[in-house]
Amino acid sequence: MKKIAVGIDLGGTKIATCAMDEAGNLLEKTELPTLAKEGPEKVIERMKRSVYEVLKRLDLSLSDIAGIGIGVPGPMDAKRGRVKNPPNLPGWKDIPLLSIMEEEFNIPVFMENDANAAAIAENLFGAGKGVKNFIYITISTGIGGGAITNGRLFKGGDGNAAEVGHMTINFEGPVCGCGNSGCWEAYASGTALTRFAREGILSGRKTRITDLAGQDEVRAEHVFAAAKEGDEFARELVEKEGFYLGVGLANVVNAYNPERIAIGGGLTHAWDMFYSTMVEVMKTRALPANVEHLEVMKAKLGTDVGTIGAASLVFHKE
Amino acid sequence: MKKIAVGIDLGGTKIATCAMDEAGNLLEKTELPTLAKEGPEKVIERMKRSVYEVLKRLDLSLSDIAGIGIGVPGPMDAKRGRVKNPPNLPGWKDIPLLSIMEEEFNIPVFMENDANAAAIAENLFGAGKGVKNFIYITISTGIGGGAITNGRLFKGGDGNAAEVGHMTINFEGPVCGCGNSGCWEAYASGTALTRFAREGILSGRKTRITDLAGQDEVRAEHVFAAAKEGDEFARELVEKEGFYLGVGLANVVNAYNPERIAIGGGLTHAWDMFYSTMVEVMKTRALPANVEHLEVMKAKLGTDVGTIGAASLVFHKE
Repeated sequence: MKKIAVGIDLGGTKIATCAMDEAGNLLEKTELPTLAKEGPEKVIERMKRSVYEVLKRLDLSLSDIAGIGIGVPGPMDAKRGRVKNPPNLPGWKDIPLLSIMEEEFNIPVFMENDANAAAIAENLFGAGKGVKNFIYITISTGIGGGAITNGRLFKGGDGNAAEVGHMTINFEGPVCGCGNSGCWEAYASGTALTRFAREGILSGRKTRITDLAGQDEVRAEHVFAAAKEGDEFARELVEKEGFYLGVGLANVVNAYNPERIAIGGGLTHAWDMFYSTMVEVMKTRALPANVEHLEVMKAKLGTDVGTIGAASLVFHKE
Repeated sequence: MKKIAVGIDLGGTKIATCAMDEAGNLLEKTELPTLAKEGPEKVIERMKRSVYEVLKRLDLSLSDIAGIGIGVPGPMDAKRGRVKNPPNLPGWKDIPLLSIMEEEFNIPVFMENDANAAAIAENLFGAGKGVKNFIYITISTGIGGGAITNGRLFKGGDGNAAEVGHMTINFEGPVCGCGNSGCWEAYASGTALTRFAREGILSGRKTRITDLAGQDEVRAEHVFAAAKEGDEFARELVEKEGFYLGVGLANVVNAYNPERIAIGGGLTHAWDMFYSTMVEVMKTRALPANVEHLEVMKAKLGTDVGTIGAASLVFHKE
């Protein structure tokens, strides 16, 4: 019988839990709302319940499972198996999630920052398959990342390595959610893109973005749709987005010298609109020797990367 | 008998070669001028000669040696054992130095970027002893670095990882020697410090730096000496130096989540003058979880770090 792992992707809005085999096939999947406001105890109860639910649906018991992997929002304390204080999980402070889950299930439990788990998943089953030096980057409301070096996860001392979204690209730049100023995330995330759009609209720029958004808040998809229609302001925004992405990628390239970078997250829906600018800017700014053998591509696992990543922790060789 | 390694530190001005035992004790050391202008063939001849010279002085033969380590200026192509085109080694282009040396000596030969070799040395014998997640940074005319993750060297795909001096800290900043703009090195290296000093002097700032430099080019030591005397402009420069160092360190901390950072290179002679600003700025800007368990200290191996680093490559466990 093939080995089976359970993966739990703990997010601010939902808990997604799967069972997966060693080849990366999803056997079962369930989603529960996190209801983060209810605090850690109730959330952890739902996480436990989701594991039993997945097992029940597959008619498996805990002894059939090689282990449980958990992807958690950072920051974490890997050495002590604790979730520190993720901004999207109110009330969590230094929660010993690893030992709580080990006690409950009495099988091996693994825990990593969600972007690191996703990097492992793409490295084992997706766009980074077989690549020994690999970086996964997710660009959505924020920018996160995970690094694989010589085939292993690059954790750092506390499990918080490769926080690439919080690398400064302009120390005089806009304030970031993390408190720092000029982080890559503050320039190139979906949140930053819509902020730039709103600022332009408020300063009087005429743009189709306003019509497309209608009564809603401006979203990244409105910007990309308007740019596709030829809207000048939206095109400027998308061009800048490509530029900022390229600046940050050059930092990633100089910092990690990866052989491949895979980019996932919501913004990749508009891949063709920023890809060429992004790569051109990256190549202009990074050290030539570090881009010579580099490939940049779209991630492959889509929205399941969270749960697949969590389950992958069980199969990743330390 | 204890194992002995030979280390060759290939620099733009000198070739320093040592024999070292497994405990990091230097047994012998020799220096030859690189005479880089004469081209790779002659330089490589001198490197070979320096190895024989060290062996002769110790009355050892090649069979007594566990291996030879070479620290080379980047960029390199680790997979093919080649030195690409270091700015300070004119005429070098994709030189297969590893195989040339293997052929000559017929014992194991190891080659890494000099900053990576120095990181290994400080990790084995210096300020990073026993630290599993460790970063070494050298600040002199340029800024270089090497990363140790989980006890191993973080090489990246081509051996060019941790080029921390070329991480952008302001994409609108001054042009760097690498062609990019706003690199950390362009703000915080010794070269940058003296450039800021000269720019100030040219714009009419009255400062003791001018007197201290006299007929010479302004050097970093003049800036620090003037600051020590209370010179206002020099103090501003040193304050800014601390700020820029802190900005870059925060990037390093977010990128690698090290447990310890050791800083070497010429600028550390003025350690006390920039340390507190540097660390304060780093702590303000980096993710709190990534600085919680972090120590920042001065490197310990001094000017011998190059040769010790090269020899350490023989003893570093892959």
